[in-house]
Formats: sequence, C-alpha cells, structure tokens
Amino acid sequence: MSTREKAEAGKSAATAMLGLDLRSRNEALASMATALRKGTQEIARANAEDLEDARREGLPAALLSRLHFGDEKIEASIAGLEALRALPDPLGRQISARRLDEGLVLRQISCPIGLIAMIFESRPDALVQMAALCAKSGNAVLLKGGSEASRTNRALAALILDAGMKAGLPPSWLSLLESRAEVAELLLLDELVDLLVPRGSKEFVARIKTESRIPVLGHADGICHLYLHADAELSMASALAVDSKTQYPAACNAAEVLLVHADFAPKGLPRVVAALESAGVAIECCPRSAAILGRPSTMPESGPWSVEYLDLRMAVKIVDSLDAAVVHINRYGSRHTDAIVTSSAEAAGSFMEKVDSASVYWNASTRFADGYRYGLGAELGISTGKLHARGPVGLEGLCTYKWKLCGSGQTVADYACGRRAFTHEELTDGQ
Amino acid sequence: MSTREKAEAGKSAATAMLGLDLRSRNEALASMATALRKGTQEIARANAEDLEDARREGLPAALLSRLHFGDEKIEASIAGLEALRALPDPLGRQISARRLDEGLVLRQISCPIGLIAMIFESRPDALVQMAALCAKSGNAVLLKGGSEASRTNRALAALILDAGMKAGLPPSWLSLLESRAEVAELLLLDELVDLLVPRGSKEFVARIKTESRIPVLGHADGICHLYLHADAELSMASALAVDSKTQYPAACNAAEVLLVHADFAPKGLPRVVAALESAGVAIECCPRSAAILGRPSTMPESGPWSVEYLDLRMAVKIVDSLDAAVVHINRYGSRHTDAIVTSSAEAAGSFMEKVDSASVYWNASTRFADGYRYGLGAELGISTGKLHARGPVGLEGLCTYKWKLCGSGQTVADYACGRRAFTHEELTDGQ
Repeated sequence: MSTREKAEAGKSAATAMLGLDLRSRNEALASMATALRKGTQEIARANAEDLEDARREGLPAALLSRLHFGDEKIEASIAGLEALRALPDPLGRQISARRLDEGLVLRQISCPIGLIAMIFESRPDALVQMAALCAKSGNAVLLKGGSEASRTNRALAALILDAGMKAGLPPSWLSLLESRAEVAELLLLDELVDLLVPRGSKEFVARIKTESRIPVLGHADGICHLYLHADAELSMASALAVDSKTQYPAACNAAEVLLVHADFAPKGLPRVVAALESAGVAIECCPRSAAILGRPSTMPESGPWSVEYLDLRMAVKIVDSLDAAVVHINRYGSRHTDAIVTSSAEAAGSFMEKVDSASVYWNASTRFADGYRYGLGAELGISTGKLHARGPVGLEGLCTYKWKLCGSGQTVADYACGRRAFTHEELTDGQ
Repeated sequence: MSTREKAEAGKSAATAMLGLDLRSRNEALASMATALRKGTQEIARANAEDLEDARREGLPAALLSRLHFGDEKIEASIAGLEALRALPDPLGRQISARRLDEGLVLRQISCPIGLIAMIFESRPDALVQMAALCAKSGNAVLLKGGSEASRTNRALAALILDAGMKAGLPPSWLSLLESRAEVAELLLLDELVDLLVPRGSKEFVARIKTESRIPVLGHADGICHLYLHADAELSMASALAVDSKTQYPAACNAAEVLLVHADFAPKGLPRVVAALESAGVAIECCPRSAAILGRPSTMPESGPWSVEYLDLRMAVKIVDSLDAAVVHINRYGSRHTDAIVTSSAEAAGSFMEKVDSASVYWNASTRFADGYRYGLGAELGISTGKLHARGPVGLEGLCTYKWKLCGSGQTVADYACGRRAFTHEELTDGQ
C-alpha cells in the first residue's frame, strides 16, 4: 500500500471508530496486553536481529539500550496498557450544556480527532504506548518508528493491530510506515491526517513543523528558567536549583538558566553556586554574577541566553527586578516551564501571571513538568504550542468536541422574526 | 512601521497585557463605546469618502451596503460592546485543579493566547467587533480590513486604539495593516503571531491557510446536509428543509444537500420538494429521486455532491440506510453542520455519534449553527478545523491555558527515589 492508501484506509477506520464504546476500546487494550505476553518470543527474536545490526553498525551504547526491548520493557508496556485501561473515558464528556429554548438542548461533547500520525525515534516502547493512547481515545493511527528498530516495530505493530481488531477495532485502525520516503509523503497529506505527534530531538520536531501543514503537537525547545527572587529562602533556592538542573539534565524540563535578583545575589548566589558545583554543574556566569563570585565572567551580558545545554551546565544572570526576570524569560525562553523561588505570594502571583509559558511554578523544581507527575495518567507529550493543548498533554490532547443539538422541529425563521426567543439556560452536568 | 515592527510591538503589548484584570479590560470596552459615540462625525466623514470612491468605481449595491457605516451601525457596534462587557471573564477560569502532594497544588487556568491577527473583508463593523473580542480576552491584535473601507477603518482603528490606551491597555495593543503587501508579510511571521482569524469568502480563507504556517481559525466550506430518515415526521421534514435551505441561503450553515431515506421518499419526498419549490428553491435531483418525482434527473448518481450553492438551489439524493447517509456526509460534507430528522432517539444517537462534523443536529434546522444562537454571547467565527476550537467559537477561542504549580520547595529527586509519593487528589472548584 502507498502512504496515501494507508492514510485513506486510516481515515475510513477513524470514521468507523466513531461511536465505539468504552468497553470495546478497553477490551482492545486488554487484548494488546495479552498479545504482547503471548508474542514475547517473536518480539525477542525481532529485537535481537535489530540489536545485532545496530551493534554491527557500531551504534552508541545509549542507543542500543533504548533499542533493547526485553522482558522488562514488555512488562512495563503491559503495565502501561493496564494503567491506560483504568483511566476514565476521555470521550463523551460533557463540556457544556445549554437549553436554547423549550425542547432545544445543545451539548458540547468530547469526541476523537480522527487520524493521528505519530513519528518517533528509536524506542520501540513508544509504539505500544502511542497505539494504546489512540485506541483508548478512539483515534486511528499511522506510526513511524526509528529505522534501527524496524524488525521490532514490525513485530509489535502486527501484534497490536491484530489484537485491536480482535476486540472490534476496524482493519487499518493502525498502519506502520517504514521508510523516510513514506514520512515525506505523509507530511503532505494534510487533507487526510488530522494531527501529527512527532517525538524526538528538537531538530527533528522543528523539521516536521517546517515541512508539513498538518497541525503538530510537540515541543521543540526546552529553555527553562529558575528565578531566585530577592526574598528567596536560601536552602530552598539551592535545593531547587540543584534538582531543576541535575535530576535529569538531558530532559527538556531541566533548567538551563538561573536568574538571580540583585538583592539575593551577594549573600545567596555563592551558596547556590557552591551547591550546584558540588553536584557537578559547570557555571556560565554573567559579568555581574562573576563579580559577586569573584571569578572571571564566562558569559557576556548579551548572552547567548537561548542555549539548551541538556547537560550539567547552567547559565547565571543577575536581574534587578522581578519584571526584568519576566522580560528575560519571555524574550529568551521557550515557553515551556519556568519557576520562581520566593516567600512572597504577591511576587509569585505576578510572576505566574506574566510569564508566558505553558507551566509556571512557585517554589517547585522545573522537573515537575511531566504528564505522570501532573496526574494525567498517560502522557502523549509536552506541547510548547499555545493552541489546542499546552504543557504536558494526556489523552485529552487526542480529543476534540462536537456540538450536539436536539430539537423538536425548531426553525431559525421563528427566532429571526420574533415568534420565539432564545432562553439560553445553562444546564448542569446531570441534566 | 514595517509589518514586522508592528507585529513585534504587538507581541510586546501581548506580554504587557498578561495579568490585566477584568475591570481594566471591561473599562477598555466602555471607553471604546464612548469613543465611537464621540467620534460619530469623524467616522461618518471617513465613511462618506470611502462610499464615494466605491460608487465611483461602480462597486455592487450589496457591497456598498456592507461598506456603509452610519448611525445605525455605530449604535449596533456600541450595543455589541456593551453585550461583550456583560459577558463573564474568559480568563483566570480554573479548568482543573489537583493536589499532587501535601503543599504541592497544580491548577490549569485559562489565559490569553497572545498576538492575534484578524483579516476581514469589507464590513467596518467587523473591525470594532474583533478589536473588542481581543480586548476582552486580553490579546493584542493586528487588524486588516478591506481596502474599499480604508478611511473608515483608519478612523475606527485610531479611535479604538486610543480608547483602549486610555483604559490602560499598552500602546500597540492594536495595529492596523493597510495593504496587501502587509498581509503577505504578516503571513510569514509565524514566530510572532499566535493565531490568524480570517473572515471572508471560502477562497479567501483557503488561500490564507495555504500561504501561512500560523494556525488559522476559520472555515472554508459550508456543505451542510439535512437527512430525512425513514420515520421522519412529514410536516417537520418539510419545515426543516425549507428553513435549512431558505432562511438565509448565502450563509455557510444553509443546507446544500437533502438526503432522503428510500422508505421515506415515495410518500414524503414529493411533499418536501413541493414545499421547497414553493419557497423558490430549484431542485437538483438524483436519478432515484427523479423517478419518484416523475421528472428528468438533473444530477447524476455520482454528483458533484460537494457544491456550496449559497443560493436557492438544493441537491436531493436517495440513500438506502442511515449508515449510507453517514458515509455520504463524511465523504462529501465539509464537517460543518449536519442534521437528521427522525422520530427515533436511537437513529438520532447513531447519526450524531458517527457524523464527523462540528455540529450534529436532531430535528432542528442547520441554520442554528451560530455563536449567538448557541448562547456564546459573542462570535469570533465558525471553525471547521478540529483542533483548539470547533463549530461556532466565542471568546474561549481566543484563550489558551497555563499550568500553575504552587509548591513549598519540592524536588523531583524525592519522588524519583521514593522518599515521597504523589497523591494526585482532584480538587473541586472552590479549593
């Protein structure tokens, strides 16, 4: 099948999936778990061949470990499927309800988006997770994994497609794309594909955004800030700086820049920097912070301030006010996650209002920006776009809504000429 | 100022507007109403010059009437401002709240999107309405109106910009773009402009969508269907067909295609068609409906079924089942608004679930698809896209949300190593 044919089949499947009840969608997840368990040997065999090729090609150890899909990862995937099954139904949720007039009731109800294309890099676990997210939310899916995992992905996709169909999902509810040429073709199919979810490096996501007119849910950069206000509590400031930077430096929600109020710096900065350095962090300091620390400056006042180190490296800048911190963050940040450390509720409120980021924190580590930590149950990804979904995105990111109007023969002419008038009475959930 | 400079100033203004309270935003609307009233003569003078030019260029009467911005339209605009002022605050609304752990509370709160660009055709009233929608929702705005209304738009924009500033909105919260070259430049500024709202013909909206990477909120086509199920009540079927087609044929929510169940057609179709024809509607009938009506077919079985007549003209097609009607609608429709006439709640439920359109109706005219009729208070437009906002869109279409996390020094390391565990307790509105 050509990519267009796969997408057309997926679009039809998406329509056939409208109206699938929760029981069927949950059964599909249970069926996938069973299939993974039964297919363990088949998966292991395919994965062993992928790993052998990868070793032969001299891929780095980190990539080999991500590529490895053994018993432990299968069990983790099965646990993920069970957790997803336990989540409440994202579909059929009443967002609003209004009686427009006697016998004319309008309800805004959540429903699937349609056909989702997901493009991810090496980890085969992502395939299971993404297929499951789509099944739970009633969406059809096109999946493209990393080429180094091609045999594993093929084995997994076949098992999962079949498991879904056994539970009543339509054929073509899932299709696997395998080559770069297929991705290039996919990106042009904006009349068939409703949403693209790319996961991978920021260059990868940026390229997808540039090359396609299909709406993209994802994030490109994670340039997160921790701002220490004048009244920041010293030990909290140190602990949050260390956690925000070092708890997992390669994550997009790790802080890259420490902004320090000029009144906090003389006493506080040396202690915070000492804590960071003893955790192995290299400090890039602006001229004013360098002066306070008594060392040469390694970062001009002019930056660069939009560097995503993804490493044990952090830039430090002195600012003269909360507003200056806000201006810096809105100018150089990536609208991902930014935090303030302060004892003042007023300062925190102002910061959280004015910083134009998906997640804004008061006295907490930037590392909390994550769907599981947010209690979303399942994470689709983190969005730095502002439309549709923002920040950590769970199942609701795969849902839209429709307006359902139930009448008893009403015509607009009656309202236009004044024979009838709208009452627009809000209804509560149960009505 | 170049378009880029206007957009950069708008972006800064958008940031400055974050955190503006409802009182200030409502004051801006009141100030605009005052300015319109005081500026009546100035506006009338500018409008007279635009009208004179338009007449000299021989523009059609319908366009002249849309271009005319006299006392009546000024009063209507002022009434619109008052109505908008009375609406509840779209910002600061708590969408969800969760206690992640003791002393660690996450709230999902609605907030402005940022910088909105609105492009509209001849009617100067749209300028007032769009500027007001943005002021109410705390967004900065770039406005481009039709060139034939350039003097009127310039006068209105100057008055409104100034009125907003008097109430505390930042300079550059509103900028007017005046030439096609400026629009062409605007469409490239995807890093500055958060959302495009084009209003006008479908060709116009489609062109904007093709030429820009900025997310677009709008609709291109309105190919709406009325489906008469086997058990449709005859008089209701006729009334809804006539209203859906004739109440305002040029509207996007007017029905273009009448789908008729084969069991309803022999008795029902002649009466429905008679009602339509006596309301002046020309019928394009498929071979099967032609046979029932005893006249020559004017529409092959193969269509074209995706024609937006926007006129007193309607296509009729016989279908053999509800599912066949659904398939037709999902294939040829524009995902705008589609209705079923039936006495069966089950048939209605199935139709409303399976038809993949923004608005799906049971026993009501397609003409109800409108923000005012839906009780949204103010209408930004109708979206046939599936992401962010769908169907009639009110103020909430100009809002996004951010995640606000308030902690007391929590680090992720504590949760990662098991010293602490998330409790993820949902909080109700008041908490």
